[in-house]
Amino acid sequence: MKRILLTISIALVTANLFAQTDPVDYVNPFIGTTNYGTTNPGAMCPQGFMSVTPFNVMGSPENKRDKDTGWWSTPYSYDNSVFTGYAHVNLSGVGCPDMSSLLLMPISGELEVDYKKYGSKYKDEKATPGYYTNFLTKYNIKTEVSATPRVGIARFTFPKGQNHILLNLGEGLTNETGAMVRKVNDTEIEGTKLLGTFCYTQNQAVFPIYFVMRVSKAPQKSGYWKFQRPGGEWEKDWNKDAGTYKIYTKYEKEIAGDDVGAYFTFDCAEGETVEVQMGVSFVSMENARENLEKEQPKPDFNAIRLAARKMWNDDLSRILVEGGSEDQKVVFYTGLYHMLIHPNILQDVNGQYPAMESSEIKTTKENRYTVYSLWDTYRNLHQMMTLLYPDRQLQMVRTMIDMYKESGWMPKWELYSRESLTMEGDPAIPVITDTWMKGLRDFDINTAYEAFIKSATTPGPQNLLRPDNDDYMKLGYVPLREKYDNSVSHALEYYMADWTLAELANSLGKKEDAEKFYKRSLGYKNYYSKEYGTFRPILPNGEFLTPFNPLQGANFEPNPGFHEGNAWNYTFAVPHDIPGLIKLMGGKKSFVDKLQSVFDNGYFDVTNEPDIHYPYLFSQIKGEEWRTQKLVTEILAKHFTNTPGGLPGNDDTGTISGWAVFSMMGMYPECPGKPDYTLITPTFSKITIKLDPKYYKSDKVVINVIKPQDVAANYIKEVRVDGKTLNGYALSHEALTGAKEITYILKPSK
Amino acid sequence: MKRILLTISIALVTANLFAQTDPVDYVNPFIGTTNYGTTNPGAMCPQGFMSVTPFNVMGSPENKRDKDTGWWSTPYSYDNSVFTGYAHVNLSGVGCPDMSSLLLMPISGELEVDYKKYGSKYKDEKATPGYYTNFLTKYNIKTEVSATPRVGIARFTFPKGQNHILLNLGEGLTNETGAMVRKVNDTEIEGTKLLGTFCYTQNQAVFPIYFVMRVSKAPQKSGYWKFQRPGGEWEKDWNKDAGTYKIYTKYEKEIAGDDVGAYFTFDCAEGETVEVQMGVSFVSMENARENLEKEQPKPDFNAIRLAARKMWNDDLSRILVEGGSEDQKVVFYTGLYHMLIHPNILQDVNGQYPAMESSEIKTTKENRYTVYSLWDTYRNLHQMMTLLYPDRQLQMVRTMIDMYKESGWMPKWELYSRESLTMEGDPAIPVITDTWMKGLRDFDINTAYEAFIKSATTPGPQNLLRPDNDDYMKLGYVPLREKYDNSVSHALEYYMADWTLAELANSLGKKEDAEKFYKRSLGYKNYYSKEYGTFRPILPNGEFLTPFNPLQGANFEPNPGFHEGNAWNYTFAVPHDIPGLIKLMGGKKSFVDKLQSVFDNGYFDVTNEPDIHYPYLFSQIKGEEWRTQKLVTEILAKHFTNTPGGLPGNDDTGTISGWAVFSMMGMYPECPGKPDYTLITPTFSKITIKLDPKYYKSDKVVINVIKPQDVAANYIKEVRVDGKTLNGYALSHEALTGAKEITYILKPSK
Repeated sequence: MKRILLTISIALVTANLFAQTDPVDYVNPFIGTTNYGTTNPGAMCPQGFMSVTPFNVMGSPENKRDKDTGWWSTPYSYDNSVFTGYAHVNLSGVGCPDMSSLLLMPISGELEVDYKKYGSKYKDEKATPGYYTNFLTKYNIKTEVSATPRVGIARFTFPKGQNHILLNLGEGLTNETGAMVRKVNDTEIEGTKLLGTFCYTQNQAVFPIYFVMRVSKAPQKSGYWKFQRPGGEWEKDWNKDAGTYKIYTKYEKEIAGDDVGAYFTFDCAEGETVEVQMGVSFVSMENARENLEKEQPKPDFNAIRLAARKMWNDDLSRILVEGGSEDQKVVFYTGLYHMLIHPNILQDVNGQYPAMESSEIKTTKENRYTVYSLWDTYRNLHQMMTLLYPDRQLQMVRTMIDMYKESGWMPKWELYSRESLTMEGDPAIPVITDTWMKGLRDFDINTAYEAFIKSATTPGPQNLLRPDNDDYMKLGYVPLREKYDNSVSHALEYYMADWTLAELANSLGKKEDAEKFYKRSLGYKNYYSKEYGTFRPILPNGEFLTPFNPLQGANFEPNPGFHEGNAWNYTFAVPHDIPGLIKLMGGKKSFVDKLQSVFDNGYFDVTNEPDIHYPYLFSQIKGEEWRTQKLVTEILAKHFTNTPGGLPGNDDTGTISGWAVFSMMGMYPECPGKPDYTLITPTFSKITIKLDPKYYKSDKVVINVIKPQDVAANYIKEVRVDGKTLNGYALSHEALTGAKEITYILKPSK
Repeated sequence: MKRILLTISIALVTANLFAQTDPVDYVNPFIGTTNYGTTNPGAMCPQGFMSVTPFNVMGSPENKRDKDTGWWSTPYSYDNSVFTGYAHVNLSGVGCPDMSSLLLMPISGELEVDYKKYGSKYKDEKATPGYYTNFLTKYNIKTEVSATPRVGIARFTFPKGQNHILLNLGEGLTNETGAMVRKVNDTEIEGTKLLGTFCYTQNQAVFPIYFVMRVSKAPQKSGYWKFQRPGGEWEKDWNKDAGTYKIYTKYEKEIAGDDVGAYFTFDCAEGETVEVQMGVSFVSMENARENLEKEQPKPDFNAIRLAARKMWNDDLSRILVEGGSEDQKVVFYTGLYHMLIHPNILQDVNGQYPAMESSEIKTTKENRYTVYSLWDTYRNLHQMMTLLYPDRQLQMVRTMIDMYKESGWMPKWELYSRESLTMEGDPAIPVITDTWMKGLRDFDINTAYEAFIKSATTPGPQNLLRPDNDDYMKLGYVPLREKYDNSVSHALEYYMADWTLAELANSLGKKEDAEKFYKRSLGYKNYYSKEYGTFRPILPNGEFLTPFNPLQGANFEPNPGFHEGNAWNYTFAVPHDIPGLIKLMGGKKSFVDKLQSVFDNGYFDVTNEPDIHYPYLFSQIKGEEWRTQKLVTEILAKHFTNTPGGLPGNDDTGTISGWAVFSMMGMYPECPGKPDYTLITPTFSKITIKLDPKYYKSDKVVINVIKPQDVAANYIKEVRVDGKTLNGYALSHEALTGAKEITYILKPSK
């Protein structure tokens, strides 16, 4: 590992500041920064919208991954080597390109504004929550970044002589282009850039980012650049700027274009520092300025860095773990760190935010959240919010209900108040139902229910969330109408959503609805092919798709009926009715054998959501729980490591990390909407979960793990809740949050 | 002539409005719109900055002239046939591309935003001052435009069904790109676009135009478009918009880019009209809105058109001509019309304007002028302002002095507060001196003099206006230091400027300066080659350039020492010392023969300024005046006609027209700074010049031309001023403006 990232080194770096090793010190922000984890080591605050991330994915053939030569969805790749600036406001753990713009780059010597030329190799890279640093070897510049929730800050330590700070508005991960920048005074510029078209799915899902940038020292010179269109052949004879970057040295009003930027030139003494603040808003430049002035009244880098560290440590300290290896602690806290990135706040310090699918600006008194990757996060991330940060989970739910009020639909994959319609299903229902069923009810359930009924019952053509609802409502399943239409995946999501909706209806006393949606939720049985023992696409004529290969679809290969997976990755994707599935498959043995074969044959895909609950399903069958315990321990050890490749694939805004974090805590909520956790062997010997007494009976639950001495013991012998032995392996949310102490007694073999 | 433009047809069109044929009715705005005249038939007010001009020079191979396939400097070409919208704010009679942006286009049917596809052929084209109309045959849309000084208005009469109004911000004549547009409400958008880099000479000479556009009817739909960069090959698989125009149907905040636009969609009844107002400012969008609201409180097309016509008629009526053919009247009034286009006002209705070479916004209580093509206009245009519109000429002079105060230099070729440094010399000196010598003195002559001394005496490297001043001051001439450095042309301008500066110094009692600059003004003699009888470049070693071809340089061919001309076009370019030149050339006969040979051999170039005074020089030699009278009459007849090709070349912001207008009036001020006119045969039998009694003794001078009956008579027999016979052919400005009646008595032969 070329970067020195271990706890020890971080402790050394910060030794003078922090006397002890806090949870925050166990975070390794480089985990997931290669191997398609798509996390990044940028500096940010928990759930702030600002992140300041090293951008090293463009401009050089020396980089392995390049946004200009192929699909690339993350601003940073650990195995790249050429840095082209800091990107402001980024997505973590996603599979589509967007955001990561306002690229801030320091350089030395002659002014160079072409990113294909100004990139630099770097060394001495380090990252801790809220802080990142490297040293640009081409320029001898030390760079450091930190952030408050809405405002970035960079500190550049320059060599003697002429140095420049560049703000590149032409590039970024986003598919959108076009920006405007305007000099406000010698040390401040403001502007806007268009972002959006995430995943290319909705080309109208675009939105502006506004910024105000300040440098801490008056520059010697400043100006803009803009790439000039090549023009006709004839034009080159006269226009020396045609087809190249023109530097604007005298012009000081606004400049707009596809590929524009601003520069500041400084004459520096050796080791002189310049700090750069970047205030951002999704409402206006005025708000960006207000965010900057309220959050960072002055560019005090060290104070801002310390404040960010404290915010992270406060959040991470909701769980304290003891025992386990140092690497396991790093994996655990880094996982929790990844879960605290998205959803993030959207509103400015004055409470303003852009309403969903609208040009209206609204004002909120609490947090308005954004970046809802709900097809992922409904599976465990919101469950973690509910457990550890119930106040935030409620605000996230209220945000979702507001989105419905503003746009007429619950979110699916919402990005900065635009619905990208990425992935499928109706995932707001399980999220909100899960929250409700766990007793967090301070939100407008009637409006939420109205929204759920709307998406569950509106005919397909008018149904934003369930476009194939006509088939689904009429047939109980979605037939394959186009070669690669993901029909089975769609329907499986609807079943899951309908089951949670039935649970909610029951809870609300709406018996008729409950019955109707419960019945619909069992429609998955239509897809079960006895011949193959898997789900199988159904043709419009009611017959199964033939020929059929249940293995087609691995490695994201296109596949009739299934999205991002093969039939095996979906056949157990009915966590709401495992007993029904067992019956369908011919009984418990057949079910267990089949499920075990998924793992034995290597069909299990830990990198994607449809099957991540599979290992837990064994625990629903008495006597087979050991399989869960064994598999989870193995998967954790194999796929979740303290290395840059230590996530098995896209982190999916914290969901894959969430799988590990819950698993390491010894519990997993494998059926959204069911307020239970399946218990498994914890990774640590002691886990203290701090609970919010505003919402939970207990303010702290301590998990103690008792192992036999001198023997490796990975299987659960017994679990005691406040001294009482638990019957089985399911622990209710109420029991968990009401307990003082949970004791896992382990045994060495099954 | 496919367009019906004659007085008679205009009279028919406007018969119900205007009972008589006014001067304005003699203007044919199509004169100069082909044959490189580079005028245009757009609608504007006298010296307003707004002009609304049909744009037909892009997007179709059916056009003969296309800005995208070669150097093209005018928004309209009479011999083109495909219209792609109305350009707002244009240059008239220039040889370099700039301005002509904010392209407003109406279309019918499906929305199409690609200018290569939406262009339309047209018919029924008509133009009168302040009004232009055509009928788009592709769309069956009648279009009409008019303007107030700062605000354009268009009226589109649509066919039944879906119609659209497009505002294309990606194209224009300007070399600059980049624009931003923002929806303000359903019927209003605002934005900005970058303009400048006129002639490509100063790539920092850029400036923004701001606009507010309103449509008179709420559209059914509206949105933006932006050309999307093609991206990598791989990107096309996902991004359906890559490399094409993306239509933004939902996004309503600002959009910026190289090639962006906005559209409004209307569902129209047959014959329904929509009016579009375009307020513009060079200060801010707020000022553009204020200009719009103050000048056009409502979109009343007819009233605005009538007001524009009245402004033109008032200005043109300063001279009334009688006799002469109808075509001659058209040529005359169209020429005067061309002289009233530039310089134009720059300030907004609130008096704000961008200061010269600065980002500062200043406020004026009078007119601030812009578009000073001084190398051209110092020769006759400002003389016409002085005579007919002295109040404006004074404001133009005060503007120039303010430019010096703001930027440190007098203007040379100023465009919207940026110095383009196009052409050469120090032309502010002759302009202001000429004004001063003619008794208009209400300006800060001391500051002007300070500016003149600065440019006359600052060493070359620091001298913006006279970059080769080191050589000039040391040697008395400028040697050829680079192959095509226009050295002789430069020096000839300095001589002229220095002579006028000497005149001014004399007038101010600065005898020493007067002597010094007078002496410098005679340095032209260095260039005279007895061998060739022409001026000839001098090498740095003091020897003449050898080999030398005095004919090189015709038709704008590059030429050592001379700019846009050959040695013959420059050899008589010392109007301030014709007696000296006569002596140099070996006496009057030799001079006359040589000058006559220029005409006889076809070396005379009526299309460019250096030699346009040549025909008048004969009048400085007693007995040879008939040559002037004969030549001017012939040139007028041959080159100035009532046809689209009726200007011999670039109108040079009215200077070439000015040659004709003065000539047709029977007088020409061939030596700037000398307050005299050389008298020649007037074109008309009676000319009434209304003078401003605030500045001149007489409030009206009537020129009567008495010809022998039944004989063609083109030579002057005698001129009487208020009854007294004039001695010679030079009439002083004081005598002209103090006279009541001037009588030209003609004779049939020399």
